[in-house]
Amino acid sequence: MMLKTHSCGLLTKKEVGQTVTLNGWVQRRRDLGGVLFIDLRDRTGIMQIVFNPDFSGDALAIADRARNEFVLAVKGEVVERDAETVNKNIATGEIEIRVTEIEIINAAKTPPFPIEDGLEVDESIRLKYRYLDLRRPEMQRTLQLRSKAAKIFRDFLDEEGFIDVETPILTKSTPEGARDYLVPSRVHAGEFFALPQSPQIFKQLLMVSGLERYYQIARCFRDEDLRADRQPEFTQVDIETSFLSQEQLLELMEKLVVRLLKETVQVDIQAPFQQITYADAMNKYGSDKPDLRFGLEMEDITDIVSTSDVKVFASVAAGGGVVKALNAKGCANWSRKELDDLQPFASRYGGKGLAWVTVKEGEWRGPIVKFFKPEEIASLTERLGVEEGDLLLFSADKKKVVADVLGNLRLKIGKDLGLIDESAFKFAWVVDFPLLGWDEDAKRFVAEHHPFTRPNEEDLALFESDPGQIRAQAYDLVLNGYEVGGGSMRIYKREVQEMMFKALGFTPEESYEKFGFLLDAFDYGTPPHGGIAFGFDRLVMLLTGRTNLRETIAFPKTASATDLMVDAPSEVDISQLQQLHIRTLPKPVKQPEAAAAAAGTGTSAE
Amino acid sequence: MMLKTHSCGLLTKKEVGQTVTLNGWVQRRRDLGGVLFIDLRDRTGIMQIVFNPDFSGDALAIADRARNEFVLAVKGEVVERDAETVNKNIATGEIEIRVTEIEIINAAKTPPFPIEDGLEVDESIRLKYRYLDLRRPEMQRTLQLRSKAAKIFRDFLDEEGFIDVETPILTKSTPEGARDYLVPSRVHAGEFFALPQSPQIFKQLLMVSGLERYYQIARCFRDEDLRADRQPEFTQVDIETSFLSQEQLLELMEKLVVRLLKETVQVDIQAPFQQITYADAMNKYGSDKPDLRFGLEMEDITDIVSTSDVKVFASVAAGGGVVKALNAKGCANWSRKELDDLQPFASRYGGKGLAWVTVKEGEWRGPIVKFFKPEEIASLTERLGVEEGDLLLFSADKKKVVADVLGNLRLKIGKDLGLIDESAFKFAWVVDFPLLGWDEDAKRFVAEHHPFTRPNEEDLALFESDPGQIRAQAYDLVLNGYEVGGGSMRIYKREVQEMMFKALGFTPEESYEKFGFLLDAFDYGTPPHGGIAFGFDRLVMLLTGRTNLRETIAFPKTASATDLMVDAPSEVDISQLQQLHIRTLPKPVKQPEAAAAAAGTGTSAE
Repeated sequence: MMLKTHSCGLLTKKEVGQTVTLNGWVQRRRDLGGVLFIDLRDRTGIMQIVFNPDFSGDALAIADRARNEFVLAVKGEVVERDAETVNKNIATGEIEIRVTEIEIINAAKTPPFPIEDGLEVDESIRLKYRYLDLRRPEMQRTLQLRSKAAKIFRDFLDEEGFIDVETPILTKSTPEGARDYLVPSRVHAGEFFALPQSPQIFKQLLMVSGLERYYQIARCFRDEDLRADRQPEFTQVDIETSFLSQEQLLELMEKLVVRLLKETVQVDIQAPFQQITYADAMNKYGSDKPDLRFGLEMEDITDIVSTSDVKVFASVAAGGGVVKALNAKGCANWSRKELDDLQPFASRYGGKGLAWVTVKEGEWRGPIVKFFKPEEIASLTERLGVEEGDLLLFSADKKKVVADVLGNLRLKIGKDLGLIDESAFKFAWVVDFPLLGWDEDAKRFVAEHHPFTRPNEEDLALFESDPGQIRAQAYDLVLNGYEVGGGSMRIYKREVQEMMFKALGFTPEESYEKFGFLLDAFDYGTPPHGGIAFGFDRLVMLLTGRTNLRETIAFPKTASATDLMVDAPSEVDISQLQQLHIRTLPKPVKQPEAAAAAAGTGTSAE
Repeated sequence: MMLKTHSCGLLTKKEVGQTVTLNGWVQRRRDLGGVLFIDLRDRTGIMQIVFNPDFSGDALAIADRARNEFVLAVKGEVVERDAETVNKNIATGEIEIRVTEIEIINAAKTPPFPIEDGLEVDESIRLKYRYLDLRRPEMQRTLQLRSKAAKIFRDFLDEEGFIDVETPILTKSTPEGARDYLVPSRVHAGEFFALPQSPQIFKQLLMVSGLERYYQIARCFRDEDLRADRQPEFTQVDIETSFLSQEQLLELMEKLVVRLLKETVQVDIQAPFQQITYADAMNKYGSDKPDLRFGLEMEDITDIVSTSDVKVFASVAAGGGVVKALNAKGCANWSRKELDDLQPFASRYGGKGLAWVTVKEGEWRGPIVKFFKPEEIASLTERLGVEEGDLLLFSADKKKVVADVLGNLRLKIGKDLGLIDESAFKFAWVVDFPLLGWDEDAKRFVAEHHPFTRPNEEDLALFESDPGQIRAQAYDLVLNGYEVGGGSMRIYKREVQEMMFKALGFTPEESYEKFGFLLDAFDYGTPPHGGIAFGFDRLVMLLTGRTNLRETIAFPKTASATDLMVDAPSEVDISQLQQLHIRTLPKPVKQPEAAAAAAGTGTSAE
C-alpha cells in the first residue's frame, strides 16, 4: 500500500513541485471532458486530485471506478491551479495534485446520508451510523475541540501541582442522591457494586490522605430520566484541594477558565467573575443559573401592591406570597395574541396567570390598570423605571412559582428581543446557597448540595434555631444560563458533621451506617478541604455553540438510554445471569407512552 | 484559619529570615527539656518546627497537646539550624521554623499503623484504611509518578496529532473474550449493558470515522479470577492509527516509551527495540514475554538425543515431543537437595521430571550420564557450550510443557544466580504471533489476539490449507518479563474478515449476529488501521519497582474483587432491584475454600 507522506488539508503552495502521497476518502468526483477531478478528504481537509490522460496513464481508469467514500491512496505532483480554477472557499484551493499512481484501498457503499455539515437527517439514523456521522467536518471539529479542552484542563492543573488520580468505577451504592447503576457481583452472591455518581467521597478521602491537590477527568453515572442536556454517563473535571480558602480556590478556577476560553475559542474573558448570591439570583433572575448576557431584571413590588385593589396582588401578599414585575422595554406594541399567549406560558411553569400593562401615549392600559391607585402607579413607575412604550408583566404567587414564571419569561423575552449577545461568554459565580432544603414528602431537611458541604461559620447557631436559613460555602459556576460547574468547601470537623447529620434527621447509628468509612477517616487528621466539578460535556457544548449534549459525545445514548449503534442494552445469555446469581423478572406490560419513550431516539424529548 | 504560604519540603536556606505559614500533619514530636520539636509533614516533605518558651509564648502550650497526625497551622521564622543539629538525611535538614503562632486545625486518633515507608502490616488493614496508607511517602510518590506518566503519554500523543476520545462505559456484552460485568437496564426490562473489556470496537470505528489518530487512557473491566497482577478494573493507554505501517507504528511507540522512561525514572533506553518472533521467544525462553535482562537460553537437543539410550528422551522425540536443555553455568556444585527440588518445580509447570548433569573435574555426573553415547556427549558439549563447573538441565515433553518448565526454571536460575540487572529496563517487541489457536474443548480455532487481527499478507493462502500456521500482524511489548503492551494491525478488507470468521467456524449469519455493526461499518470505506494498548497499571508497577498492581492504584480491589474501605460490593434495597427488573437467586452454600477466598484480602493469592 502507498502510505501517506502528507495530509490533504495541510499542503500549501510551498509544496508545489514535490511528489506526495495522500490517503483519504472521496468527497466528490467530477468528470469534465475526460479529465477526472476528485476532492480527497482526510481529517485535515480537502485536496483536489486530478486524473488526466496526459499524465495519469492507467490511474485514470482505476480512479474512474471510485465513488463517494471510497478510500484511496494517490501519488502525484503538487501543482498550482490555473488562476481561473482557484477555489477561494477551501484552504488548499490554490493547488491540486496531478496523480500518476492510484490504489483503491477500499470500496464503499453509498452512505445513508451525505458526509457534510448542516445535515438534515433524523438523529436516530446519525446515531445508528455514528461512524459515518463522525466523518462530517463539524463532528470532527467538535471531537478535536473536546480533546483540546481536556488537554488545557490537564496542562493547567498539572502546572498548578494537581495530581491526576483515578478513582474506582466499581464502587458502593450511595444512600443519598440520584438513582445508581448497579453491577451484580459474581464472587459475592446477592451483592452489587454501583457505578459512581461522582468521585465525591474518594476525592475527599484523597485530601485526608494529604494529596492536597487532586484532579481527574472522571466518568460519572446517573440512572435518571434523560433530557437533551443529560446523559446516563457523563464526564466531569473533578477537582479537590486542601488548605485553600474559598476565595483562593475560585480565583484559581477563574484562571483556568480564562485560559480554557482563550485557547479553545480565542475569546478573552475577564477575571474576577461576577459573584452573585443565590438569594439575589433568585430575586433578580428567578434562577440559580441566570443568563447574565442581558439585564431585564425582575423587581419585587409586593410592598407597593400589598393593599392594592388588584385583589390577586393583595391576597397573595397577605398570604405570604410575592408580587414581582418585569419591565419589557419597548414591547407595548405586542399584539393581543402575543399578550394572550402569556397565560399558557405562565401555566407551563406553574403560574396561575400573568397580568400586563402597556404604556402607550403616556397612558397605562390593560385589564388591571383601573384598579391601581395613583400612588401605586407612581411607585411602580419609579421602581420599574417605566417609560413610554414599555410592557409591564406581573406575577403574583408563591415565591418559587413567581421565580419560575418570570425567570423563564425573562429568558424568552431576552431571546425574542435579541437582547442576548450570542457570541458572549458570560461567567458568574452563584454563592451562598442554602445548606438545607425542606423535603415536603419526607418531612425532613435534605442537603441542597450534599451532606458534606461546609456551612458558613457565622450561621452555625442556626442549626438549633432555623436550619433552613443556614448558608452553605457552596458555589456554582454559571455560563450563559447554564450551570457548568459546582462545588463547595467541605466539613472537616467532626462536631460540625454531627450537627449536619442531626439536621438531616439521621440518628448517630444511621449516620455511621451510611457514611461510616468517611466518618472514620474524619478521626485521623482531616485537613480543611474543598473542591469543584466542571460539567465537561456541557462546557464543550457551549464552547462549540451546540444545544444538545449528544453532539459533543463520540458515542452518546438516546433519551431512553440506548446506544443505537451497538444496540445496547440487550438481552444476555441466561448462563451469564446465573453466574451473577440473578434472574430477570417477567417483563412488565408496557404502557403505550412508555413503549414510545423506550423506542424513541431522544430527539422527541428535547 | 492560617493558610499556608509555603510547603514543608520546598523551603530552603533562601527563605531564612522570612516569616512563613505552614499547614501539615505531625509526623513526630520530641520534648527536649521544655523545647518542643515537631516534624511537620505535607506532601512535599518534612519541616522541623520548634516551640521554645523564648519565642513561642502561648503556642508552646497549644503545641504540647498535638499528637501524631494532628493537623496544624503554624507561623514562624525560617532559621538556620546550629551546625551540630543539621540533619543530612532530609532535604530541609539545614533549617527549621521558630514558631510564634499555632492553630490545631484537627485532632487525630492514633492511626492503626505508622505513617512511614517500609511498613510491615497486613495488607487488609492498609486497604481498609487506605486514606492513611496513602499518606505514606512511598504511596505519595507512586501516585505522583502515575500522574506524571499519564501526563507524558498525553503530551507525547497530543504532540503527534492524536485525539483523546472518550468511549462508552455502558456498552454491549461481547460474545468473545473474558467474562463481562453486566449492568441491568431500568428503562429496558430484561436487558443489560456490559462494561467494556477494552474500547477495541469503538477505536476501530473511530478509524472508520476518519479520525486517523486516536488515544484514550481508558478504564477497562474483566470479571475474571484475580491474581496479584490483575484487577477487575484496570487502565490502559489505548491507541489506534490509520494509514501507518506496522513499522511506522512501532517506531512511534518506541519514541513514546523512550520519553516515558527518561522523564519518569531518568533512564535512557535505546530504540529501536529488539524484535523477536513469537516462535523464537518460545524456543529460546519458553515464554512469549521473555525477560531479556539475561541470557541462559534453552537449546533444542531433540535431534541429538532422538536415538539416545536415555529412554525418555528417545520416546518423547519419537512421539513428536521435544527435548531441550539449559546450561546453568557454574552451578555444578548445587547440593543434592537443590537438585532434588527441581522435580517438584518441574511438576508445578506440568512436567514429569527434570534430568540433570553436573560437570565436575572434567567429568559428566548424574543418573542419566551412563546412558549417553560418547558422540551424544560431544554434540551436547558443542551445542550447549559445556565447560567445567556447568549444570545441565533437561526437559523432555510436549513442546508447550518443556517451554513452561524450562522457561520458569530459567527465570528462577537467573534470579538465584543474580544474573538479572534489577536496574535495567529491557524492552522488546514480540512479533509474528500465530493468528489462530486450536481450542481443544470447543474443537475449533479461536483468535489468539482477537477476530479483527490482520493476518500476514503472505500467509493468506494458509486459510485453506493450514490455518494454525498463519502469522498475525500482531505485536506485544515486553519489559523485564512482563507484557506491558500489545496490539495488531486490523483487518480492513471485508473478504479477509470473512475468511477469518470462516476459520473461526462462524456461519455468515453468526458473524453478522455477533459483529453486525462492525461489518456494516466495513462497507462504507474503512481505512487500513492498527493500534496498541499499554497496560498502564503494570507499566507504573514496573517503573516504581513494585511487584503488586495494588500498590499502583489509589483504591484497588482485593483478589476477591472487594473494596475493603467502602465495603463494596454490598447488598442493596430490594426496591432498587425491582426497578431494575431483576431479583437475586438464593445464595449458594459456600464451599469452605470458596468462602476463604471470598473473605481473603488477596495477599494470599500472590
